[in-house]
Amino acid sequence: MDNLKVVGKKIPKIDAPLKATGAALYIQDVKIPGMLHGKILYSQYPHARIIKLDTSKAEKLPGVRAVVTAKDMPPNFRIGIMKDNPPLKSGKVLSIRDEIAAVAATTPEIAEEALSLIEVEYEELPGIFDPLEAMKEGAMLIHEEAKSNILKMPWRLICGDVEKAKQESAYIVEDTFSTQWVTHCCLGTSGCVAHFDMHNNLTMYSNTQIPSLAQNDFVEALNAFGLKNRRVRIIQAVIGGGFGSKLDTYAYEYIAILLALKTRKPVKIIFTREEEFFATSPRQCTITKISHGCDKDGRLTFRDVEMVLDNGAYTSWGATTPSVMMLPISSLYKVPNVRYIAKCVYTNNTYCQAMRGYGNPQATFAIESSLDQLAEKAGIDPLELRRINANEPGEITPQRFKITSCGMKECIEEVYKRLNWKEKRGKDNGRGVGMASLIHVGGGARVYKSDGCGTIIKMDDFGKVDVFTGASDIGQGSDTVIAQIVAEVIGIPIEDVNVINNDTDICPWDVGVHASRTTFVAGNAALGAARKIREQILEAAGKILDEDPADLDIKDGMVFSTKNKEKSTPLGKALRKIHYTLGGKMLMAEYFYDPANENFDKEFKGNLSVSYAYGAHGVEVEVDRETGKVKILNYVAAHDVGKAINPLLLEGQIYGGGLQGIGYALGEKMVYQNGRLMNGNFLDYKIPTAKDVPPIQPVIVETDEKDGPFGAKGIGEPGLVPTAPAIANAIYDAIGVRIKDLPITPEKILAALKAKDK
Amino acid sequence: MDNLKVVGKKIPKIDAPLKATGAALYIQDVKIPGMLHGKILYSQYPHARIIKLDTSKAEKLPGVRAVVTAKDMPPNFRIGIMKDNPPLKSGKVLSIRDEIAAVAATTPEIAEEALSLIEVEYEELPGIFDPLEAMKEGAMLIHEEAKSNILKMPWRLICGDVEKAKQESAYIVEDTFSTQWVTHCCLGTSGCVAHFDMHNNLTMYSNTQIPSLAQNDFVEALNAFGLKNRRVRIIQAVIGGGFGSKLDTYAYEYIAILLALKTRKPVKIIFTREEEFFATSPRQCTITKISHGCDKDGRLTFRDVEMVLDNGAYTSWGATTPSVMMLPISSLYKVPNVRYIAKCVYTNNTYCQAMRGYGNPQATFAIESSLDQLAEKAGIDPLELRRINANEPGEITPQRFKITSCGMKECIEEVYKRLNWKEKRGKDNGRGVGMASLIHVGGGARVYKSDGCGTIIKMDDFGKVDVFTGASDIGQGSDTVIAQIVAEVIGIPIEDVNVINNDTDICPWDVGVHASRTTFVAGNAALGAARKIREQILEAAGKILDEDPADLDIKDGMVFSTKNKEKSTPLGKALRKIHYTLGGKMLMAEYFYDPANENFDKEFKGNLSVSYAYGAHGVEVEVDRETGKVKILNYVAAHDVGKAINPLLLEGQIYGGGLQGIGYALGEKMVYQNGRLMNGNFLDYKIPTAKDVPPIQPVIVETDEKDGPFGAKGIGEPGLVPTAPAIANAIYDAIGVRIKDLPITPEKILAALKAKDK
Repeated sequence: MDNLKVVGKKIPKIDAPLKATGAALYIQDVKIPGMLHGKILYSQYPHARIIKLDTSKAEKLPGVRAVVTAKDMPPNFRIGIMKDNPPLKSGKVLSIRDEIAAVAATTPEIAEEALSLIEVEYEELPGIFDPLEAMKEGAMLIHEEAKSNILKMPWRLICGDVEKAKQESAYIVEDTFSTQWVTHCCLGTSGCVAHFDMHNNLTMYSNTQIPSLAQNDFVEALNAFGLKNRRVRIIQAVIGGGFGSKLDTYAYEYIAILLALKTRKPVKIIFTREEEFFATSPRQCTITKISHGCDKDGRLTFRDVEMVLDNGAYTSWGATTPSVMMLPISSLYKVPNVRYIAKCVYTNNTYCQAMRGYGNPQATFAIESSLDQLAEKAGIDPLELRRINANEPGEITPQRFKITSCGMKECIEEVYKRLNWKEKRGKDNGRGVGMASLIHVGGGARVYKSDGCGTIIKMDDFGKVDVFTGASDIGQGSDTVIAQIVAEVIGIPIEDVNVINNDTDICPWDVGVHASRTTFVAGNAALGAARKIREQILEAAGKILDEDPADLDIKDGMVFSTKNKEKSTPLGKALRKIHYTLGGKMLMAEYFYDPANENFDKEFKGNLSVSYAYGAHGVEVEVDRETGKVKILNYVAAHDVGKAINPLLLEGQIYGGGLQGIGYALGEKMVYQNGRLMNGNFLDYKIPTAKDVPPIQPVIVETDEKDGPFGAKGIGEPGLVPTAPAIANAIYDAIGVRIKDLPITPEKILAALKAKDK
Repeated sequence: MDNLKVVGKKIPKIDAPLKATGAALYIQDVKIPGMLHGKILYSQYPHARIIKLDTSKAEKLPGVRAVVTAKDMPPNFRIGIMKDNPPLKSGKVLSIRDEIAAVAATTPEIAEEALSLIEVEYEELPGIFDPLEAMKEGAMLIHEEAKSNILKMPWRLICGDVEKAKQESAYIVEDTFSTQWVTHCCLGTSGCVAHFDMHNNLTMYSNTQIPSLAQNDFVEALNAFGLKNRRVRIIQAVIGGGFGSKLDTYAYEYIAILLALKTRKPVKIIFTREEEFFATSPRQCTITKISHGCDKDGRLTFRDVEMVLDNGAYTSWGATTPSVMMLPISSLYKVPNVRYIAKCVYTNNTYCQAMRGYGNPQATFAIESSLDQLAEKAGIDPLELRRINANEPGEITPQRFKITSCGMKECIEEVYKRLNWKEKRGKDNGRGVGMASLIHVGGGARVYKSDGCGTIIKMDDFGKVDVFTGASDIGQGSDTVIAQIVAEVIGIPIEDVNVINNDTDICPWDVGVHASRTTFVAGNAALGAARKIREQILEAAGKILDEDPADLDIKDGMVFSTKNKEKSTPLGKALRKIHYTLGGKMLMAEYFYDPANENFDKEFKGNLSVSYAYGAHGVEVEVDRETGKVKILNYVAAHDVGKAINPLLLEGQIYGGGLQGIGYALGEKMVYQNGRLMNGNFLDYKIPTAKDVPPIQPVIVETDEKDGPFGAKGIGEPGLVPTAPAIANAIYDAIGVRIKDLPITPEKILAALKAKDK
């Protein structure tokens, strides 16, 4: 490992120049001859009956090629993981983003104008916008055919005996924490181009995070359209951010498909920024009642959590985030008895989706806030409490996670040291320090039937390789990481590696970009294929150099004997010898890596990931008691990453995660009033910008994960997981008030101070 | 073999609908944002000194982005197989197509106008346009630095003792035959788009027949430009015909590269039809002195051939066609003693290139015309003479070709029978029959260091496969043949196979489309990869069905036991079981096939191909003694194809080859006068059209080639090889005159009749 040439180096993202110079082609840039432009008409009410829908005027507008409504969709065709979402709605609309008609026209402007010519009459209905209301006995049913507004997803994890532990605990705290809607704020808005060939095979230009699963979804849709056994090809444009938002297929994509079928032309639908705000699926808001106990020495005895999630009107992956929330709830720190019951509830709000962390930030906000409360009650320094209960390698957690490598303690110590914890803590002078830890999947997550990724590598006669990976680079830098791994294994410069990642015709299967799995899973897949190439080279070079292949190594494009350095040959020369021989060959290899992780059993137990990532964030804040404004003075983000394949990108993930977490903690909120989004633009919905970046210190803790590529774990999501509770805890340390409802706005702080002063 | 579902079927070309509806994207259709248009200024004289070259006015024309001349090219940079061709010429021009300047502008029209503003003054020099003149002692040297106008390519094959055989022969004939320049007449004209990225990596959109070798050529060019170790990617547009014309890289491509480098923009150069005629490289003209002998029983004793080829001013693959001419000269019919000496000679004519048959048509015209003369002299029916001397399986020819399968006798019998030879022959009534046979490489041809082709296959969860092949489909239908082979082996419908063949980043290495090698070599590569997929399926299905994999078969997407038909599973289900298992995988396989053929040794001997294709064409003609016009009444084209993978495409190759051969025999000729092409357009250069198609009977003779995919041999070129001599022989039978100089025009017939009547 000491001798690494490419892995472990701070290598800039290989696609950065393309993006920096505007040469990268985003979905917005896709142009196909004859292409039409689609636009969608959304509901004007969050809950209403459609009385009249007349598209005749729109159809007559010159330049309009098709106007579609629910009647053009296959009957009973539904999308989403619960199949509760018709891509075009009829009868009743259930949320303000309900799609009721769409137009394809020769220009976006004509399409837009046509929308205004569609006549719709509604009978407005009262809506339910509060999940607690929706859960009440006798509440109006959002989906009439469902028997309850509570989704049939029995999220319920029981480990040990919580009730008994409660009785045996020395200290117990209980409180309720809540989180808000936030959205991904991808700079590249959603969009697609649907294009049928003459055989009714579909090519979908997309910025999906799940090309292989999207392919399945669209195959299924074509079946519904009566187009059986057709091919679907997903071509991903350069993706301007994902963060979980593109983890499902959406109504607009099926509408583009329908319009393309109707018009026999390619149809492009691109979201405006306003659509991106109100018509995509955010991180859901949660209400979490949490109770924690410990013994007299501060050892955790139980954790008891009840949660309500606002699912919105339809169901996508957001409804499954409790599966990941279970991870910190059951296994963040050693806690023998755990109970977690979560309910996802239909409302007339927008429906929710996965977002970086996949529920973990909401759960960790509750857990880590509550832990500080417990520490106070037990009279233990909160960092010390965490030291006492920190996870360790070799542990098997109550949910049956097998902890292999674990750098949690090291991360906590880094926070302690770099935050100057002892000196800064408990000063009650308007400045304070706080911390929070995290656990997250770091070695894939078996949520689908396969958690695998395939890689194909071919190598030319001069040592240049093409790598076809199932992995999607949504900006996180996976292409660079994969190129590094391949370059290191084969012994070539990274410039000689070309990563192809955007076409299901070419790239092998992959379950998608989620669960921080790409470096780990796609990295291992690339590693496996690269090793096969390396073996072929060494075997052939052994013959050329008359050496045992086991004694050969490749670095910087030279094959040499490790025993006798004078015995060497340029790699290209060896490759040409391998190729230009009777029965010769160019080098190719394929490898499919599926981690040995487990699907949960019916009790939601099992080793979901083959590795777990840990981290601890510590924050020093200064709170202005006059304005309620929080200023971050210092921010230490220590992460157990296994091995840093590319410290530059890793730090980028930590900076980015931290900043996104700070936005979540202190400012971002989608303001919904009676189902209508009130701040759907970047003027009113404020994300932290470059000017808002506090002094973040990323700290990389390496633990050498045995199953990871070069020892690495996944690290895509963790950066924002502990941010909000660390800040909340620091604020409490600074001014003695605890904000339990995100975001922690100046108004809430002032109100809390006022209440405290009373 | 009896049970084949896809192979052996008349399946229409899978790309036909695209082409028929105009959806296919040719090089003409490639458009890249910011793309400029390049145009080339050619010499006005076939031989001249450039006195002045002033581009200043052109540079000032609005819209012009670059004007380049030889001084912009790297000094001493030369292209072509002898490196005798600077892409932009300075000092002296050596042919009328010499490129002396080029322009890149925002529109083709502006580029064209800019060319007219370039001021050139020439000092015209006397040229040499006759290779016999050029060979004379003291002749002016075309390339001053060369010592002779005769290329340093010592084509010389000696087998046995020709002089001794001459003395021992019962009958001997000797005569001289000559052939004309003809051009490929691709309906898609030449063109390219050169596009550099920010790292100076080059993407070249091209219609080359040799993507892997062109990649090497351009890498070399970038090196010359000082761009070391850059990546070159070749993307092939849909190719509108090749026929050998795109077997090399050309000046226009390097000019596009230069212009793209100068302007930092993509640059497109597309030939006009006129350029396609005069500025591409045709089949060269030849003068062949041939002598044949046989014993009293008609057994051939020797063949003695001397040949002069007009190479033109520069050297491309045309100069190497004698290597393939050796094949019929040494091995068409059993002939123990052979001598062949060929000289390629520089002239101030256009330089020549490979064209379908690669010299074989020229050589076979001389051989088969001469054989008829020998038969007459020996008093043997010419078909009988060929029966006596026909090649046979198991033979090793004097040039050391190992004949495996050989259907020559069967082909001759087909001609005999279907032409009604006995009845029609020797009637001297203005109607006559004639025949000629052919031998050609049918199992690759090791002319480069590798004769290989790679294939990668991946299979999705529903049984659909993507095949990445090195093979290029230039219209011959290789995609369809490869799809059939893969579909047959895996047991799926051909619709489920997607062939990707046009991108060096994706497709494995292949030496190029030439030597009729694609069905054989790329077919075997696809077969090898498909078998690996099949094995994986059967192994897994064996477990699912609890059967020995050896007892399983796959047809029409069902895996079943051959012993117990009730035991079966849909393929897709088996695939999903293979994939959706812990440690599961999607199926991928790679295979590189390099045939076990040999490069020639220094004496030009060796088993060039692992299989040889045979055929015999028989023609019945009617000759109008008044007009000299030849009418083809019947045309039997019998071909030993090993196994017909797709009889429909095979017949297409035979029809097309026959028609191209008829054009060669009876009409096509590039009329060069003192180095200038006089008929460079489709009005004056007449190719046979649909209206000219005679009744061609394609006859498929199957011989089951052991090394061929499903027993197939290559059959791309043979269709035109024996056409001209078969027609010439038939004309002789009809009217008693023999035309020895192609094309056989009415004028030549009338002149010959007149001379005979004297």
